Amino acid sequence: MPERIPRQPFEGCIATYAEANVVIIGAGFDGTSSYRPGSRFAPQALRAEALYSQENYSPYFQQDLTDFKIHDWGDLDLPFGEKHRALAAIQQQIRQLFTDGKKPAVIGGEHLISLPVIEEAQRIYPNLVVVQLDAHLDLMDELFGERLSHGTVMRRVVEVLGTGERLYQVAIRSGSREEFAFARKHTQLYPFTTREFLKHLPALKDTPIYLSVDLDVFDPSLIPGTGTPEAGGIFFPEFMEVLKALLSHQVIALDMVELSPKIDPTGNSTIHAAKIFREMLMMLAID
Amino acid sequence: MPERIPRQPFEGCIATYAEANVVIIGAGFDGTSSYRPGSRFAPQALRAEALYSQENYSPYFQQDLTDFKIHDWGDLDLPFGEKHRALAAIQQQIRQLFTDGKKPAVIGGEHLISLPVIEEAQRIYPNLVVVQLDAHLDLMDELFGERLSHGTVMRRVVEVLGTGERLYQVAIRSGSREEFAFARKHTQLYPFTTREFLKHLPALKDTPIYLSVDLDVFDPSLIPGTGTPEAGGIFFPEFMEVLKALLSHQVIALDMVELSPKIDPTGNSTIHAAKIFREMLMMLAID
Amino acid sequence: MPERIPRQPFEGCIATYAEANVVIIGAGFDGTSSYRPGSRFAPQALRAEALYSQENYSPYFQQDLTDFKIHDWGDLDLPFGEKHRALAAIQQQIRQLFTDGKKPAVIGGEHLISLPVIEEAQRIYPNLVVVQLDAHLDLMDELFGERLSHGTVMRRVVEVLGTGERLYQVAIRSGSREEFAFARKHTQLYPFTTREFLKHLPALKDTPIYLSVDLDVFDPSLIPGTGTPEAGGIFFPEFMEVLKALLSHQVIALDMVELSPKIDPTGNSTIHAAKIFREMLMMLAID
Amino acid sequence: MPERIPRQPFEGCIATYAEANVVIIGAGFDGTSSYRPGSRFAPQALRAEALYSQENYSPYFQQDLTDFKIHDWGDLDLPFGEKHRALAAIQQQIRQLFTDGKKPAVIGGEHLISLPVIEEAQRIYPNLVVVQLDAHLDLMDELFGERLSHGTVMRRVVEVLGTGERLYQVAIRSGSREEFAFARKHTQLYPFTTREFLKHLPALKDTPIYLSVDLDVFDPSLIPGTGTPEAGGIFFPEFMEVLKALLSHQVIALDMVELSPKIDPTGNSTIHAAKIFREMLMMLAID
Amino acid sequence: MPERIPRQPFEGCIATYAEANVVIIGAGFDGTSSYRPGSRFAPQALRAEALYSQENYSPYFQQDLTDFKIHDWGDLDLPFGEKHRALAAIQQQIRQLFTDGKKPAVIGGEHLISLPVIEEAQRIYPNLVVVQLDAHLDLMDELFGERLSHGTVMRRVVEVLGTGERLYQVAIRSGSREEFAFARKHTQLYPFTTREFLKHLPALKDTPIYLSVDLDVFDPSLIPGTGTPEAGGIFFPEFMEVLKALLSHQVIALDMVELSPKIDPTGNSTIHAAKIFREMLMMLAID
Amino acid sequence: MPERIPRQPFEGCIATYAEANVVIIGAGFDGTSSYRPGSRFAPQALRAEALYSQENYSPYFQQDLTDFKIHDWGDLDLPFGEKHRALAAIQQQIRQLFTDGKKPAVIGGEHLISLPVIEEAQRIYPNLVVVQLDAHLDLMDELFGERLSHGTVMRRVVEVLGTGERLYQVAIRSGSREEFAFARKHTQLYPFTTREFLKHLPALKDTPIYLSVDLDVFDPSLIPGTGTPEAGGIFFPEFMEVLKALLSHQVIALDMVELSPKIDPTGNSTIHAAKIFREMLMMLAID
Repeated sequence: MPERIPRQPFEGCIATYAEANVVIIGAGFDGTSSYRPGSRFAPQALRAEALYSQENYSPYFQQDLTDFKIHDWGDLDLPFGEKHRALAAIQQQIRQLFTDGKKPAVIGGEHLISLPVIEEAQRIYPNLVVVQLDAHLDLMDELFGERLSHGTVMRRVVEVLGTGERLYQVAIRSGSREEFAFARKHTQLYPFTTREFLKHLPALKDTPIYLSVDLDVFDPSLIPGTGTPEAGGIFFPEFMEVLKALLSHQVIALDMVELSPKIDPTGNSTIHAAKIFREMLMMLAID
Repeated sequence: MPERIPRQPFEGCIATYAEANVVIIGAGFDGTSSYRPGSRFAPQALRAEALYSQENYSPYFQQDLTDFKIHDWGDLDLPFGEKHRALAAIQQQIRQLFTDGKKPAVIGGEHLISLPVIEEAQRIYPNLVVVQLDAHLDLMDELFGERLSHGTVMRRVVEVLGTGERLYQVAIRSGSREEFAFARKHTQLYPFTTREFLKHLPALKDTPIYLSVDLDVFDPSLIPGTGTPEAGGIFFPEFMEVLKALLSHQVIALDMVELSPKIDPTGNSTIHAAKIFREMLMMLAID
Repeated sequence: MPERIPRQPFEGCIATYAEANVVIIGAGFDGTSSYRPGSRFAPQALRAEALYSQENYSPYFQQDLTDFKIHDWGDLDLPFGEKHRALAAIQQQIRQLFTDGKKPAVIGGEHLISLPVIEEAQRIYPNLVVVQLDAHLDLMDELFGERLSHGTVMRRVVEVLGTGERLYQVAIRSGSREEFAFARKHTQLYPFTTREFLKHLPALKDTPIYLSVDLDVFDPSLIPGTGTPEAGGIFFPEFMEVLKALLSHQVIALDMVELSPKIDPTGNSTIHAAKIFREMLMMLAID
Repeated sequence: MPERIPRQPFEGCIATYAEANVVIIGAGFDGTSSYRPGSRFAPQALRAEALYSQENYSPYFQQDLTDFKIHDWGDLDLPFGEKHRALAAIQQQIRQLFTDGKKPAVIGGEHLISLPVIEEAQRIYPNLVVVQLDAHLDLMDELFGERLSHGTVMRRVVEVLGTGERLYQVAIRSGSREEFAFARKHTQLYPFTTREFLKHLPALKDTPIYLSVDLDVFDPSLIPGTGTPEAGGIFFPEFMEVLKALLSHQVIALDMVELSPKIDPTGNSTIHAAKIFREMLMMLAID
Repeated sequence: MPERIPRQPFEGCIATYAEANVVIIGAGFDGTSSYRPGSRFAPQALRAEALYSQENYSPYFQQDLTDFKIHDWGDLDLPFGEKHRALAAIQQQIRQLFTDGKKPAVIGGEHLISLPVIEEAQRIYPNLVVVQLDAHLDLMDELFGERLSHGTVMRRVVEVLGTGERLYQVAIRSGSREEFAFARKHTQLYPFTTREFLKHLPALKDTPIYLSVDLDVFDPSLIPGTGTPEAGGIFFPEFMEVLKALLSHQVIALDMVELSPKIDPTGNSTIHAAKIFREMLMMLAID
Repeated sequence: MPERIPRQPFEGCIATYAEANVVIIGAGFDGTSSYRPGSRFAPQALRAEALYSQENYSPYFQQDLTDFKIHDWGDLDLPFGEKHRALAAIQQQIRQLFTDGKKPAVIGGEHLISLPVIEEAQRIYPNLVVVQLDAHLDLMDELFGERLSHGTVMRRVVEVLGTGERLYQVAIRSGSREEFAFARKHTQLYPFTTREFLKHLPALKDTPIYLSVDLDVFDPSLIPGTGTPEAGGIFFPEFMEVLKALLSHQVIALDMVELSPKIDPTGNSTIHAAKIFREMLMMLAID
């Protein structure tokens, strides 16, 4: 099995592995980010900030993290600079979680780490739908000659799902012409806002959903600490509407990626991400 | 009397003490803030930035600060590290201002500094209503074994008022489960936005109001320079709606707290706080 | 002719001068900014960031920069510290562009650089309308005894136009009492938001328009890297509405000013400005 | 026993607890630092930076960390805001290490954390000498009425040792008049540089030594990320001379305190501290 | 008389004006600095940092600031943007200090503020020697057509002194070819270090000395917060040697200029400048 | 030929290509830096800072850049993310420079860019000696399975030279055990300082020398803005001694690498690098 780096649990997530139904796991890989890397530090930073700055109680869901059975497994010890081995380690450990009947809540790392998680989810839930909240399409076929990259990950996800029809790309506001052409033809594209997607969401009532949140979906004024910020993103209340709408659905796993703590000298990006993750955990834990 | 540190007046506030009806006073105490202190520097920084970056004229109220009788008394010289003496000094000076018939406009410092100001206000206006714009409830009974802290201040205010019914907690988005339980039972809780509060505000027509603005009520994208930022806050236009609505009420004093200038390396948090304070001063000064 | 500093073209702007109908030109003068200068670095920084962080494709206009004939002329070599000669150099080169039938897209620099551009535009289009998106009126008659300054530029523009009736001041939220009095009397003032202006815009259907975007019109949470930030600005979607509305008008030139890259240690202000400029270029290039 | 937060071991420290003779332990307490706290984040930050930026090999000692039996125990889970319980937890765990025959290498936290470690060391080595490399004397009897504080810690150490004659205060350059008077009378004071101390060091040949390194002993140009920087400190080569001189002595435990990672936006203070700690570990491990 | 902005006194400087022989005065003018202004904030920032971070006791001089009769007059209220009026105000107030028998200790502001101080000093001490510790010669005759500028100030000082023979330019490491030619011909030039100057200093035994310290004389690693940093400067111990050597001389006034607090996000430049100023004050106060 | 990005010449370097004997060329490739990339921005940033902050005159060499025939060719347009093509482009253009009888002065980029330059230099000067001023050995055989990387570049240089005996590694203070073993056996290793190297230097009197300056050779307090800072580096005066000693040698080309401008929020790293480069240019240009 891949090596585990034990971590002080995310504040409020105090269940044992055995009793937990939601399991946090950190996958701080950022090896394909060459512009502004740093998401490798996200899992650690997130837990450290949550510890000092955050309540366990969510006034949005009116619940407390300690009400739920959430376990923090710690972080995967990923071989920096060796992409294929890192992805394999993630996939192996996620498979174990699914085998043990857990819902994984993965902290990236760059967006590429979603790929092995989705592969395992799809293995168990063949009709899996992926909901991607993101500024970017990430649908390039290759980036600098590489097929596995933060810019190609959703193209690979389409291949894993066997179709783009079960990939919902929500609040997107950036991509090349080719990527948008691909999306319009093959995936479920909901650009700029979450409004139209929320209207459609009831149709996914009985479908298992994987939620992937690239933090750059938020307006960069809220989360400046991310590698490829894009003006014109969503704000926190709009995000909470999506989470609340997902409450009545069957979300089976999720990830939050692309926090790059050191880019933001105020430290606030990490503090906000910790809050966002707290709400995501609750949504996942509430049955 | 407590010692005064003379300061260059807040830009545009040029009345003498004798002629003034509004008096600015700085209370830069941050001794209970252990996570990210620094609000001790706020009163000085605020005046320095207003001097170079700000007009005296408000296009929102279509008035100029120089139209009013506002005096800047300077800052209290507070004994750093000695909480009780610092609070006593604030209280003594505020009592003097009320005795002299002035409306105090206090610049914090951490939120705890509101307590002695409200105590004095309550002494004069026994039916005083406190309107708290804040991200946090600040209703803990104790924090690290201390009853006087930025996290407990509103619990103490409830004791001072003798009831929570005259404490309006507006745009709140953080607190423990216990604090929210207390608020729902005892105080006037208006979470997340100011909308419902604005509907209720006319009912307070003839009641003396104390306005306490914790700058973390704003979205942290606007004021990153604060000790405990919380995603999902209000923006400037929503704040101006509250101020405009308060124009027709009897606001008898106010404070603005929790600016921590050094956290924000751009300096913009202080610049924005100076503008917010200019508008608060006008609202207070306009009869 | 003024000296040219060649630059790597703004990403996606690959036409030759001869074939281009839109021509980018940098005018990084900031000699009258004494509070927080630095916009001299904007033209270079903008191109460098666009190169690494940005797509050529706009999902807003569903077009690609490479679809258009846009040439990047490079930057003017402006004599730092010699205001009059710098303005003269800008004016001379802009005249050449108009003579050659190009639409100039100017990157500032401080707002004063708009003046010589507008002078040349007015020479060719005598009924020219200037649309100024800005936080500040910039209508002072003198600043520190100087008539040519970032704070007086629009007063000079009124003189150049011969009237304030053709100066639209949009989303303004700061100025002295005197400036607002002047604006209310002489110019077309649309304070705080773009809403009312958008209603009026159809009336300008057949009028040549010069668009001047001072980046401080945006909320400073989005563009903290500007010299005189003002709380309460517009966000990206509102800006895009203006650009889309202008599509059906005859915009003949534009500028984007007051980006001060070094104020924002995250680098995001420059990244956002690059996106804003990409959309402005498209609006200008689309016939 | 106190609770342990497991951590990814400091890079190169791969021995098991059983086989180790040197044991790293983090004590990230900063509860008495009110000016610029943040050393609570030091133990985690140090390990994270060492992981990505540092070799295990020291060209100074021409040895590799993996040559030694060093174990990283992780961090103590210290009750933030409860000073006495935190100190007790440190003391209890350090006692265990000594009982198990280990040499502790403690990562602070503020300087106060040295006190319980020295108390335990003194219990085992009654003729213990404490060598304090520091900018400040830390000899106040009380600070804000408190006897336990980062500013009083060495006064308490004198009480623990029963004498100041076995407290060597080296490279000191700050303190009150009273503290310097106390030091000149009671402790071994070597102000400003390490030169005179190095001459004296051979006299301590057979004495057990506790080494306490407050990182502010370094020139603040090297370690800006510390709470109370003082111009005029030592540089890295001078520090290495001390470590090399200590090689032939019986150092039985050590600490490194007062790194405050977030103060330095370049991250370099933490990177340098990781190197300093690597060399300290080697000195301790080399018999 | 010029207007005074009262300030909280520099920590430890508690004498009344009447009893003082040394008087601190702030002159925060930075109107000719166009590259990286900000020294206008230095006088305020210096006092605020000294308050929280610094002892009154100097282990270098083994004296305490409170042992001396030092008064802090506060800051001059200088008309920003109006150079001539600002310089006149400084000159008028300095004349008053000399008339009252005080030794002025001036906090800049940019280096230009030394000029009016030296003019008044020369009026009283016709054989005045000026000792300039600086990275730059500041000997240009004009800068951007202006004769009064931070780059020309020492050329004007030569005119005021009537000769360059009484201008000692020490530790200089930057200037144009023309400035160095002028210095080699007319002034006392001691480039790069203070060593040769210290050898010469005894020759000035009975001459009244004005000391002007441009903080960029220090290595920029120590004081990054200055407008025009130059690699290769002096460090704190070398500076203290100069101060100690000046003890036995007749220093009659001094200034410390070009601290630009906001350039250094760690705040350390201001903390170090406060220490430097404490030592300068002692040297001036010790008879 | 590779594509050229024209740039505003480095301040003072005004010769035409034809007349020049020294030619500046930028090679801003940082594609193998995964920890803290950003040196891609160095060539542009260096020129921009030199323009505003620096004299052309060197008081160290008592010469002015304009005295020499130095041309600034601009930057190579390097395909980001495609290492082999980037290196080939550098090599091709450097070959052209040598063919045209120019001495190249290359601005990186990461250290890997030295490799193609040295290859071309070695082709012309078969007895070429490489003098590497660096904190790191860069002698790994592979890094993450790659043979071409900033960590392996000097291993490849040894292969290009056909021997390590002509590689002088000076002031080195970091590397793995294996790298140091290799260096001790194969290269000319002068660790920690330049002292011993300077003694040996006369022996290289008639040998063509390539000088490669990795800016991390400097103490990181001077140049914090570099990817892998190491405590304990050299300072500016020691560097100038090396340059002066090289004056009487036959230096035929040089590079300066690993400046990462954005890591240092003060901007000073770039300012200092510009000065370092000015002195390197003079040393190269002086016959």
